Amino acid sequence: MIAILKHGASDKQIENLCTWFGNRGLSVHLSKGESHTILGLIGDTTRIDTDLLMGLDIIESVKRVSEPYKSANRKFHPEDTIVDVGGVKIGGGNFQFIAGPCSVETHEQICEVAGRVKTAGAGMLRGGAFKPRTSPYSFQGLQGEGIRLLEEAKAKTGLPIVTEVMDIHQLEYFDNVDVIQVGARNMQNFELLKELGKMSKPILLKRGMASTLQELLMSAEYIMAGGNEQVILCERGIRTFETATRNTLDLSCVPLLHEMTHLPVVVDPSHATGIAKLVKPMALAAAACGADGIMIEVHNDPKNALCDGAQSLTPDEFDDVVSCVNAIREVITK
Amino acid sequence: MIAILKHGASDKQIENLCTWFGNRGLSVHLSKGESHTILGLIGDTTRIDTDLLMGLDIIESVKRVSEPYKSANRKFHPEDTIVDVGGVKIGGGNFQFIAGPCSVETHEQICEVAGRVKTAGAGMLRGGAFKPRTSPYSFQGLQGEGIRLLEEAKAKTGLPIVTEVMDIHQLEYFDNVDVIQVGARNMQNFELLKELGKMSKPILLKRGMASTLQELLMSAEYIMAGGNEQVILCERGIRTFETATRNTLDLSCVPLLHEMTHLPVVVDPSHATGIAKLVKPMALAAAACGADGIMIEVHNDPKNALCDGAQSLTPDEFDDVVSCVNAIREVITK
Amino acid sequence: MIAILKHGASDKQIENLCTWFGNRGLSVHLSKGESHTILGLIGDTTRIDTDLLMGLDIIESVKRVSEPYKSANRKFHPEDTIVDVGGVKIGGGNFQFIAGPCSVETHEQICEVAGRVKTAGAGMLRGGAFKPRTSPYSFQGLQGEGIRLLEEAKAKTGLPIVTEVMDIHQLEYFDNVDVIQVGARNMQNFELLKELGKMSKPILLKRGMASTLQELLMSAEYIMAGGNEQVILCERGIRTFETATRNTLDLSCVPLLHEMTHLPVVVDPSHATGIAKLVKPMALAAAACGADGIMIEVHNDPKNALCDGAQSLTPDEFDDVVSCVNAIREVITK
Amino acid sequence: MIAILKHGASDKQIENLCTWFGNRGLSVHLSKGESHTILGLIGDTTRIDTDLLMGLDIIESVKRVSEPYKSANRKFHPEDTIVDVGGVKIGGGNFQFIAGPCSVETHEQICEVAGRVKTAGAGMLRGGAFKPRTSPYSFQGLQGEGIRLLEEAKAKTGLPIVTEVMDIHQLEYFDNVDVIQVGARNMQNFELLKELGKMSKPILLKRGMASTLQELLMSAEYIMAGGNEQVILCERGIRTFETATRNTLDLSCVPLLHEMTHLPVVVDPSHATGIAKLVKPMALAAAACGADGIMIEVHNDPKNALCDGAQSLTPDEFDDVVSCVNAIREVITK
Repeated sequence: MIAILKHGASDKQIENLCTWFGNRGLSVHLSKGESHTILGLIGDTTRIDTDLLMGLDIIESVKRVSEPYKSANRKFHPEDTIVDVGGVKIGGGNFQFIAGPCSVETHEQICEVAGRVKTAGAGMLRGGAFKPRTSPYSFQGLQGEGIRLLEEAKAKTGLPIVTEVMDIHQLEYFDNVDVIQVGARNMQNFELLKELGKMSKPILLKRGMASTLQELLMSAEYIMAGGNEQVILCERGIRTFETATRNTLDLSCVPLLHEMTHLPVVVDPSHATGIAKLVKPMALAAAACGADGIMIEVHNDPKNALCDGAQSLTPDEFDDVVSCVNAIREVITK
Repeated sequence: MIAILKHGASDKQIENLCTWFGNRGLSVHLSKGESHTILGLIGDTTRIDTDLLMGLDIIESVKRVSEPYKSANRKFHPEDTIVDVGGVKIGGGNFQFIAGPCSVETHEQICEVAGRVKTAGAGMLRGGAFKPRTSPYSFQGLQGEGIRLLEEAKAKTGLPIVTEVMDIHQLEYFDNVDVIQVGARNMQNFELLKELGKMSKPILLKRGMASTLQELLMSAEYIMAGGNEQVILCERGIRTFETATRNTLDLSCVPLLHEMTHLPVVVDPSHATGIAKLVKPMALAAAACGADGIMIEVHNDPKNALCDGAQSLTPDEFDDVVSCVNAIREVITK
Repeated sequence: MIAILKHGASDKQIENLCTWFGNRGLSVHLSKGESHTILGLIGDTTRIDTDLLMGLDIIESVKRVSEPYKSANRKFHPEDTIVDVGGVKIGGGNFQFIAGPCSVETHEQICEVAGRVKTAGAGMLRGGAFKPRTSPYSFQGLQGEGIRLLEEAKAKTGLPIVTEVMDIHQLEYFDNVDVIQVGARNMQNFELLKELGKMSKPILLKRGMASTLQELLMSAEYIMAGGNEQVILCERGIRTFETATRNTLDLSCVPLLHEMTHLPVVVDPSHATGIAKLVKPMALAAAACGADGIMIEVHNDPKNALCDGAQSLTPDEFDDVVSCVNAIREVITK
Repeated sequence: MIAILKHGASDKQIENLCTWFGNRGLSVHLSKGESHTILGLIGDTTRIDTDLLMGLDIIESVKRVSEPYKSANRKFHPEDTIVDVGGVKIGGGNFQFIAGPCSVETHEQICEVAGRVKTAGAGMLRGGAFKPRTSPYSFQGLQGEGIRLLEEAKAKTGLPIVTEVMDIHQLEYFDNVDVIQVGARNMQNFELLKELGKMSKPILLKRGMASTLQELLMSAEYIMAGGNEQVILCERGIRTFETATRNTLDLSCVPLLHEMTHLPVVVDPSHATGIAKLVKPMALAAAACGADGIMIEVHNDPKNALCDGAQSLTPDEFDDVVSCVNAIREVITK
């Protein structure tokens, strides 16, 4: 970490500051220029709060040289993390399709979709039981009953199941869930993240719609700091001024996250765009830039889906996406 | 609600759609133009999901004529809501300063600050006990002990206390808290909102950093739909491309929210800007455009504050803000 | 266009409004609901200003049913536009690489790069002569001399040249330029667009960094309304809150623009990301989602480039991008 | 400027880099840490391109210690600039209202509005003659004739006139214009800025809708570098995800710009919000946080205005704004 002092900082002030850093276990490298004095701080600065430093009178600006995330940092863990979901692997060259309906609705619906996406090549089944909805008047999901239906679909198809948790209290229903999803709105629900850090199940962590990549990694760090290192990151679109799509899918985050971290990165083109006909081209693009997996909404009857039908593919459309994505994967892994 | 059908929708499709609406208790007013057919939907459309409609093949676009929030809507509740916090009123012409440190640190600190801000004219004491921090390695607050210290400061000064809850589990500590704050990162923590809807305490709901005003009101609606109508809204800056301030304070939301809703609106210039010297001008601006209250971080020793010292005022600086804001209030309420 | 009237609009007011529309050549279809009256306006509404309508007392909201762009609209021109640049075609299934240095520097530099990118498979040579720079103290380009050097490279390699104009005055230098580029900062320089509309050369129009797709098409419309229909659109990243990349490449605009317009769409991953190592994955992603061309910065000596070296590829790296993109193209056009 | 080198930079590479800096007139202060080597660059770094540095293999990151703007920088010019417009002063404690219609329409209209706003207390008359419009089919302004009408209003009332230029060619009409306005879309029309730098008239420079404060100051720097130091900055709203207002008025930029620069700062609440009823509260807020002037659209017949009627005040409403703003000014200048 580097701190640039204001012109006019007195020797006494600088000495006090150096002592303050010393007390926090950092060694200080002082470099006086004509107009500015620069302090280089050496040691573990992850616990130093840059905002706090900015509050000191004599400091003009502060710049981190090291990233504030450690467990998630590729620098300290060069090889790719491979998350193993009951034998289905993701990351480190292993690619997976995670497919299923926005909401679990009935036994017939979820089992039919599960069978279809498995045949098409999906490695995991997704489906919402606890649904985060902007309006208290919208359908809030089948909740515990929804998870029971997912378990039935898993029993029938063998597909591991991925579903979202919205609150610590709901975790009691998640015993047989294979991957616990944290939604974009809960990416910084730190109490939930801490709880998930104590579990031994893989976590699929969605990027918040106004979260930077560093913040996403800091949220992964919350989970990993608790001991659970099986985190899958998911890009699902960020909020921008553009209104033609629901969110703006930020695909350049895929290769960038692969530089910053060793964790697998999947892309959800369904939620990012909110428009079914954009799902295929954006799934291909995600595969082309190196995503480790793609998460797609598939519904056997999108027109009558209880939620987000507008962005769901039919099973036939999903078949087509899978075969095209696989062809793209062949090109880029050759 | 208005639905505009695509050119080429068949009579059969239109009839099916009208039946579908009818089944949901809506009457339909059909208007065929040369290039488009328009359906006007009359009845309670708050339960209709516009995304779902957009998924139907024959629909080109959908437009709500009525707002999806009801309890928070000024149209159905023209007079201002006045929230009464143990005799301290906010809204409907009643203006309050809510002041105190970012984090509660010690008995001495919180009591000294409480005494000072009370003398200066604050109506409520704020202080963080449960702290949402981006990094798992940062100070996470004194938690239950912090709330105990706030209670001591309340006992000493008589100031009602405002503090943040981050998770339902923490609510057991909030028995003596007067106003429960929901932070920006939890604005769409719907399970928490539902729980707060069952309580009979005022809730201070902060706008999420990427949330629209309509989303803020939908979150207030979650609380109100549960029966708790004492909601105070708080603007605390939104995330934009500008990096010169931590967030961009969106003051035009103050008069706009006053049009849209009857709930009181307060402004937090400390978190919005993250820079102490911007707090005074932005507090004056907030008062000038009609805010019902201002929330300000005050610390007796900002340079050594455990968090967010950079944006805290000293008690003396707070005195100055209060007297200037009061003078502005006099101008605009004349 | 649909206008929703406020509750309480009087019959007299409504009649006046209908007359006002009638005078503008529109026929009005009136539909009175319980709480709202809705006017459907039929005819050419492109000249109606929605902001102006919103200013009328009795209007609650206005919604366009038809897009305000006509010449660029795919609805009125279903087949793809193919832009022909001296025999090099782009659009309608024709894909091109546009490559070259950020700035033209010397005869040797531009000719060497031109030779290399031609061999690799580029269809056009790009290079900046007039450079838009944030700082008046930065290198502003070789200007007229730069264009002369581009002409020499064209003479040597046969590659058509693409270069940016910043002001009408500079057009005197563009006689032998094959494609005139309008930069992101000039996307709404309407006087310049009008002037380009009078020319018979293809225009490469870059999306402004805070411009919606509709605004991009309205700027294309300025050029096309003047009679010049050879417009190539270019996505080059939009400005968001994320700072890890220079801009956020919005790839979902590619399939979306292909729905909205018949004009070719190219992608510039170099400027969008500002980071050389992201250029290849984002070029592949652009090809995978259907871009008609890719614009890439290539420099024979990126480390000593006079501008934007950070995002330039070496000729060898460009070779690799071309062969991978071509393999992706084969997959998606099968 | 500080450059942080990558771990693993060789001595030879570092030496080469130091030589490269030396050739550019900078002295280098080298500081080797355990994990990083840091170079402090001393001298005039305004001509060094940080993007170019970032392109070098051995550089991890670069941080400017000095601002890249000089003429506009308050550090080198501590006292406020007062711009004198024919005796009407703005800045350094002098506050002005700039009022008038969005577009000049007729002699009667502009003269009536001019008379009314003068009586109310406006110091300058604004009115658009050359109009930047998103659509080529919208009214483009009366152009030269509009400026002639402004001159008539000036002759009649004595008010200096402020009007927008969109292109260098139009400057021939601006001989009798007192303040030349650069619109948000042209803030980075660098050729136009250079031309204005050669003139001796005050320039009102509007912030681009996606421009940072530093970019705004760099654009001011373009004008000042040419010798014209009479620049008035104008905040008019930035583009964000919020759609309830046309733009988001960023008022915290007012006190921040006053720190960064000595130039006067005015606020345009009309264009920022696009909603007439928000103009008064936001004008009061702008005055409360220290703006040096306010620019307001006033039309004698807003409902029939040819453009932007939705955001125009009537002369009576303007009277009310002036008296309230003046009362606020009294409070904050006491």
